[in-house]
Amino acid sequence: MSTERPDDQATEDKSGDKVVTAAIIIIGNEILSGRTQDANLAYIAKGLNEVGVTLREVRVIPDVEATIVATVNELRAAFAYVFTTGGIGPTHDDITSECIAKAFGVPWVVHPEAHKHFLSFYAPAELNEARMRMATTPEGASLVYNPVSRAPGFRMGNVYVFAGIPRVMQGMFDTVKGELKGGKPMLSRTIGTALAEGVLAKSLGEIQSRYTDIEIGSYPIMRRGAFGVNLVLRGREPSRLGVAAAEVAAMVRALGDTPVEE
Amino acid sequence: MSTERPDDQATEDKSGDKVVTAAIIIIGNEILSGRTQDANLAYIAKGLNEVGVTLREVRVIPDVEATIVATVNELRAAFAYVFTTGGIGPTHDDITSECIAKAFGVPWVVHPEAHKHFLSFYAPAELNEARMRMATTPEGASLVYNPVSRAPGFRMGNVYVFAGIPRVMQGMFDTVKGELKGGKPMLSRTIGTALAEGVLAKSLGEIQSRYTDIEIGSYPIMRRGAFGVNLVLRGREPSRLGVAAAEVAAMVRALGDTPVEE
Repeated sequence: MSTERPDDQATEDKSGDKVVTAAIIIIGNEILSGRTQDANLAYIAKGLNEVGVTLREVRVIPDVEATIVATVNELRAAFAYVFTTGGIGPTHDDITSECIAKAFGVPWVVHPEAHKHFLSFYAPAELNEARMRMATTPEGASLVYNPVSRAPGFRMGNVYVFAGIPRVMQGMFDTVKGELKGGKPMLSRTIGTALAEGVLAKSLGEIQSRYTDIEIGSYPIMRRGAFGVNLVLRGREPSRLGVAAAEVAAMVRALGDTPVEE
Repeated sequence: MSTERPDDQATEDKSGDKVVTAAIIIIGNEILSGRTQDANLAYIAKGLNEVGVTLREVRVIPDVEATIVATVNELRAAFAYVFTTGGIGPTHDDITSECIAKAFGVPWVVHPEAHKHFLSFYAPAELNEARMRMATTPEGASLVYNPVSRAPGFRMGNVYVFAGIPRVMQGMFDTVKGELKGGKPMLSRTIGTALAEGVLAKSLGEIQSRYTDIEIGSYPIMRRGAFGVNLVLRGREPSRLGVAAAEVAAMVRALGDTPVEE
């Protein structure tokens, strides 16, 4: 099950480019209750784009052991990289770390390096049972430090286990970003128009059918109280992307509007 | 597979109360690319809380037919209600509606009421092939109107199919909210403290162990550059929630801080 070599799970996209895939598991009742707005998905997604890794799926699940274990095992087998956020603190509801150990079928043990790390700023009396939980990881995990908080996340196989607090999570992601082995970065171009989707749909579909290596999305938005559309082109070849974007811009002009490139 | 009676999938929580469950499927490459920040999860989650429905899982998936069909079928069998957002417009990348038909194994056909609805504001010549796609639904679907856009969403069995644009999605959700059959609403109390989680973890865990019908979460936050913690208690019985919240507040005082009730 363990995939130390993410390349094994690379697949190809329509242009024949290697695609390295990823999934995110957002763990936390506070997101599912609507109380807290997730901010980690977009940060990780953008970072993955930069290193040529494609985010394929995100799941938001509660702090329930069976659900966490099953979800981690399903997704780490299906994608090259998995990132989890949330549930690695010292309180009773922080169960992610133990669940990762169960998912990998390894013991959950004090990590000597993490223990030493915590002893560098806690007196032994302060390093209570709760805090020792944060120095405990699945056997074989490697630590992921961050510049914001004292508690590290960790990596276990192809699973990166991060904190839920956005600033801390971002620090952890930035720490490991350089070690991710992706393909060609995904590039994008955005063309805005006030045309209705129903007016441009046919021509846009025709362009899409001629550019199978470019993914063209049409996203209606509210702009100053009126509907507008962002036409987003994504692809890995700058020259092809430029040609396709020029066609989309020409289409907007032919339909009587002035395209706005972001 | 179709579950016209959501009560069939009600389960019980630890206090013996009926729990009616739900899942959300956020469909769209623009969320997975990190380009667009989802705003629909929190809105639906809060609305479900109010009518006593518990959101158990959220998935964000790409505009890929096989993925949409499989995810819809997995989740509509596992949860009382499923809400999808995104992919119901007129452009080539809007494939949700056809995928719902495939998931239910029914034809995708022009909906007479939707057709009539569109003819009330489009001249026949304007009601082109692309726009007719928005008048086409899985056979047996009922329409869900909204006050913001002309295009309706729809309901098919226990699956509600909504737009992705937040204001439109909100209008659709508000339209159907009254017809959802939930249990007792989930109530919450929040107590803020500047104590470190490592300091309060043991006492908090002891309180949690005595209130099995209350879910106690500890959520560290950054407050004015310093870490703080929100202790959130959730439960369906106001009196029990009040007693548990008073215990948590007393715990914070005993540990030397002044609790801040939101």
